[in-house]
Amino acid sequence: MTTSTDNLRVSYRLAWRPGEDPRAKAEDIALEQTVELPRACVPPEIARRVVGTIESLAQIDETSWRVTIAYAPETFGGEVPQLVNLLFGNISLKEGILLERVVWPAATLAGLPGPRFGVPELRRWCGAEAGRPLLCAALKPLGATPRELADRCRRFARGGIDLIKDDHGLADQPSAPFAERVQRCQEAVGQANAETGGSAVYMPNLPGTAGDLDERLETVRAAGCRGVLLSPMLIGLDTLRWIRERHELALLAHPSMTGAYFRPDHGIAPEVLLGQLFRLLGADAVIYPNVGGRFPLSAATCGAINSALREPLGPVAAAFPMPGGGVDVERVPHWIARYGNDTVFLIGASLYAQPDLERASRALLDATRGAAGLTGS
Amino acid sequence: MTTSTDNLRVSYRLAWRPGEDPRAKAEDIALEQTVELPRACVPPEIARRVVGTIESLAQIDETSWRVTIAYAPETFGGEVPQLVNLLFGNISLKEGILLERVVWPAATLAGLPGPRFGVPELRRWCGAEAGRPLLCAALKPLGATPRELADRCRRFARGGIDLIKDDHGLADQPSAPFAERVQRCQEAVGQANAETGGSAVYMPNLPGTAGDLDERLETVRAAGCRGVLLSPMLIGLDTLRWIRERHELALLAHPSMTGAYFRPDHGIAPEVLLGQLFRLLGADAVIYPNVGGRFPLSAATCGAINSALREPLGPVAAAFPMPGGGVDVERVPHWIARYGNDTVFLIGASLYAQPDLERASRALLDATRGAAGLTGS
Repeated sequence: MTTSTDNLRVSYRLAWRPGEDPRAKAEDIALEQTVELPRACVPPEIARRVVGTIESLAQIDETSWRVTIAYAPETFGGEVPQLVNLLFGNISLKEGILLERVVWPAATLAGLPGPRFGVPELRRWCGAEAGRPLLCAALKPLGATPRELADRCRRFARGGIDLIKDDHGLADQPSAPFAERVQRCQEAVGQANAETGGSAVYMPNLPGTAGDLDERLETVRAAGCRGVLLSPMLIGLDTLRWIRERHELALLAHPSMTGAYFRPDHGIAPEVLLGQLFRLLGADAVIYPNVGGRFPLSAATCGAINSALREPLGPVAAAFPMPGGGVDVERVPHWIARYGNDTVFLIGASLYAQPDLERASRALLDATRGAAGLTGS
Repeated sequence: MTTSTDNLRVSYRLAWRPGEDPRAKAEDIALEQTVELPRACVPPEIARRVVGTIESLAQIDETSWRVTIAYAPETFGGEVPQLVNLLFGNISLKEGILLERVVWPAATLAGLPGPRFGVPELRRWCGAEAGRPLLCAALKPLGATPRELADRCRRFARGGIDLIKDDHGLADQPSAPFAERVQRCQEAVGQANAETGGSAVYMPNLPGTAGDLDERLETVRAAGCRGVLLSPMLIGLDTLRWIRERHELALLAHPSMTGAYFRPDHGIAPEVLLGQLFRLLGADAVIYPNVGGRFPLSAATCGAINSALREPLGPVAAAFPMPGGGVDVERVPHWIARYGNDTVFLIGASLYAQPDLERASRALLDATRGAAGLTGS
């Protein structure tokens, strides 16, 4: 006999028009996500155990209702693909259903790995005092050679950037084959660290093709890298969990292909997909497009993602929010005030727009330390 | 030196309001999906080789334009995650961009496996004459025991159903553990075939957890199954390709989690994601929610998916469209007339709503054979 605290509780915002029956829509979700049959076709004993239970249903405003459905542990077992399927699989194909919130049972939290290293350990690697955010530079562009990319790595590292990550579009293209790129870039960062006494960390993008993950992760390990960038929606959400459990690597998660879920009326709220799921599956830091940059996420959404990555969640460590876009020397104080120190600022174009990457990096670090109230360099 | 026919051509429908510059939005996509930098920050030689080229840009109507962008082979290499990333990765996070059409270069088509068996071979397995569609029953519900599920398999097989597939929510839950379910259901279908002289085929759902795929596929093989159901968006698109290349199994692809991409103003058109990508990656049959059923796909969209699965595509075999929902004895002639014989009709609730699964299955097969102009049983 399971108790109610063993259940997974999922809240959906339902689009609604006058005349529609919100309870019928809620009931439809509870059936669709479990037995995929009308209730009349389900044996009562199975219905009692397996069909989702509507725990609450309330009107939000003139166009929407909120329903919370409880699912028994039996329905999702311990496996990630079925957990994701239960949350949004078939109903992704319907309309007007926004997955807004999940309350995770303790057994589920205990069964998902969460970040291996998390905030304090990444700080320690980078020698970054607790009183400031970390800085991450994106290594670009696709089309550059490994030597050119390694040269950029060296400049970023000499300039004091904490983390240097590949663009997630750098896979294994002929212009910069994976193995050569990883080796040259890691060497360049190591040499720069040796010269400056710094501790920049290079994290290559893992192409994530099925069947060669171990081989590619061995390339990463052999080169001496301490982490990788990966895109869970490109390589599979459960692949993130699997890499986290098998490899002693920090994992930066990229939001490629997630945006289609972020429609206001239908999908999965960014704070659930990026903030909760990516963290639970093992991301040490989660990249998202910052408000005011090239993508349309709102300030409220960015704040909600940050909260979801940091808030207490059973035994699961916190992950770093990693907003990308809109951060430059002038705006560093603004973003630190808004997002706090346990943030990684991902900097792309604003560094590349300057002629001297090392100098630009140094100016950004100085501005960050200054805004955080730290002195010296 | 590559020629223009080596390029991948991608057409997007751009949402547009008077006063907006459609060329700027198109240019933004071409940069975002490749170098992720403003053009001014990209060395000209790299820009020439790597940034997408706008080949055409034309107004569609009062609210939209269409752009076709050509990407050089260098940008996507031969790997699926980066190919998907190039098509829609970062721009998934933008607004008003609908991926409508892809023209695939010959090298890409040659590098992707497509269906291993396809239409004629699945027909042969099932002993199904070319003059009629195949029938597939969904094994339900989650919560039933392996014995109960096997009993349903037996009834479907005795009734003449061609393919019997697990619901995609049947993973490895305690009510019906994967290995026991696969073995009992496969045995039940085999026994029924021996009794009737039929040739029903059982295809279990592959839970698709990372790291144990080979073990689970060995369970499937050892039981004697000839195919599996899998959900590419749950287990990873490239995992579909990998299973196709390594295992002698027919693959049914389920659309779980794809629906968020199917918004009319932003996403990936169903005929591209389900019709082209799933087929190219190796699905022998692709399930989609039929018009008029529990999901809101239109008749035009269903037709477009069918066309995409069947149309000539280099060396890639055709796949079966597998519409689910809305098919019963009365409507079989309608759907055959509309969709043609090279279709698998997926039947769920309309069978379970009847007291005798074997009799209901037989009636459906008879109606199908009758509507297809075949005689005898």
